[in-house]
Amino acid sequence: MSTLLKGKAVADNISEDLIKEVEILKEKEITPKLAIIRVGARPDDLAYERGALNRCAKVGVETEVKELPEDITQEDFIKELRKINNDTNIHGILVFRPLPKHLNEEVIKYEIVPEKDVDCFSPINAAKLLEGDDTGFPPCTPMAVIEILKHYQVPMEGKKAVVLGRSMVVGKPAALLLLKENATVTICHSRTRELSKVTQEGDILVAAIGKGKFVKEDFVKEGAVVIDVGINVDEEGNLHGDVDFDQCEKKASMITPVPGGVGSVTTSILAKHVIKACKLQNNL
Amino acid sequence: MSTLLKGKAVADNISEDLIKEVEILKEKEITPKLAIIRVGARPDDLAYERGALNRCAKVGVETEVKELPEDITQEDFIKELRKINNDTNIHGILVFRPLPKHLNEEVIKYEIVPEKDVDCFSPINAAKLLEGDDTGFPPCTPMAVIEILKHYQVPMEGKKAVVLGRSMVVGKPAALLLLKENATVTICHSRTRELSKVTQEGDILVAAIGKGKFVKEDFVKEGAVVIDVGINVDEEGNLHGDVDFDQCEKKASMITPVPGGVGSVTTSILAKHVIKACKLQNNL
Repeated sequence: MSTLLKGKAVADNISEDLIKEVEILKEKEITPKLAIIRVGARPDDLAYERGALNRCAKVGVETEVKELPEDITQEDFIKELRKINNDTNIHGILVFRPLPKHLNEEVIKYEIVPEKDVDCFSPINAAKLLEGDDTGFPPCTPMAVIEILKHYQVPMEGKKAVVLGRSMVVGKPAALLLLKENATVTICHSRTRELSKVTQEGDILVAAIGKGKFVKEDFVKEGAVVIDVGINVDEEGNLHGDVDFDQCEKKASMITPVPGGVGSVTTSILAKHVIKACKLQNNL
Repeated sequence: MSTLLKGKAVADNISEDLIKEVEILKEKEITPKLAIIRVGARPDDLAYERGALNRCAKVGVETEVKELPEDITQEDFIKELRKINNDTNIHGILVFRPLPKHLNEEVIKYEIVPEKDVDCFSPINAAKLLEGDDTGFPPCTPMAVIEILKHYQVPMEGKKAVVLGRSMVVGKPAALLLLKENATVTICHSRTRELSKVTQEGDILVAAIGKGKFVKEDFVKEGAVVIDVGINVDEEGNLHGDVDFDQCEKKASMITPVPGGVGSVTTSILAKHVIKACKLQNNL
């Protein structure tokens, strides 16, 4: 039987710290504030938004949602973004992605000011992630992976970490963040040969390949720590991670559930980044 | 006996292609031009500069060296850099690094225009490297690694590539470039446990740890392709790679020499990047 790495305990722990930080800021008459920019009303975005608003409220971070019409032009979108960039009361900006196809993310990502970009949309934060520069904002989901490992005191230094998936949203940043923790990191993906042999090497296995129940028992090293970043909905509307939980929990020493694992920590990281941004913007 | 992966053949091959590209540009009355910014006169920089000037001359890329006094102020340095940024006759800029300590690279790297930054000084090019965006300019040395592997038709897709070292100059970019070629990539470093066991897994082993003759026979998988990025000078003034060549060439199927390996391809990549920059700047 493996230990269940529940996200809630991690999120609660982070929240406690954040509440104290916000109190200190409020004594200085500073209230950290997040602006969420959402185009249209995709159910995924709305679900995440609810979680983010709740989490922020809980720790004392103010929020503002800018809902923009689905047919907004690129010009108008950038105008709105710039307004928020320049609003000194707003410290963090989350832009829901992917944006509708008629909006060019490759252009827009250069518009968000890096200092407010709390989920690594700006290339400047991507560069800081690559460099291991702590003044930047890595994406929230892979940061949640690291926070879970730290919370449950999983040693990373010198350990073999295998990341399954190489997206810009999770795989690559997770690999870089594990590398920064001095793990020996392997990135594998759809073109990897003998995949299960490679993933079997991992003392820590991070699954972020976006395929429900893809990681089977034989993918997992006996006693490994398995972190499941996947969120997949099957035809019957059931939620699954990238890991076949029933199979893998027998072999893993620790494993995150889905739901209730990585996903429940992400909004805490978001709030943490808003507070960090607020402090940096106030030279604190 | 392993095949020697000589850099010269690779460099000559690239040069041939570049000469043709420059001819086409000159027909349109465009001459690609590189500016080198050098502060002081470090022997390492001068040696590389000579190589770069020769290579550029060979392929028809114009060059200009801006030698700046060692005690130049940050303000004046930035003034000079901006002049070159704005000079439409110059398409590529190479800034020798590290800069003297009184110049703040963390500030200056934001000044170079990404479109002319042919050796990945700008964070924008670091971000493009992370994203796998081909419009950017990865650093020349790890690009030379990839060009050598391609030239000698070493398959990368699905192969296990192990990168020893995690610097921003070689290790991390080499890992990302190998990942882009669909290799399964492991990054190991000074904190990796049982290092030789990890490197032994590599079908391709890239050594970039900066320690002379560090990689011994037992680090290398039988039949592996070994790429040595190290340039180390011992107490007697002899040049060594990071790989103990005499030991490893018995086990490797292919191996780069030092000197005459990766180092002799780097300036060709530099020239290639200048031409690429020139074409992009002219919408070609």
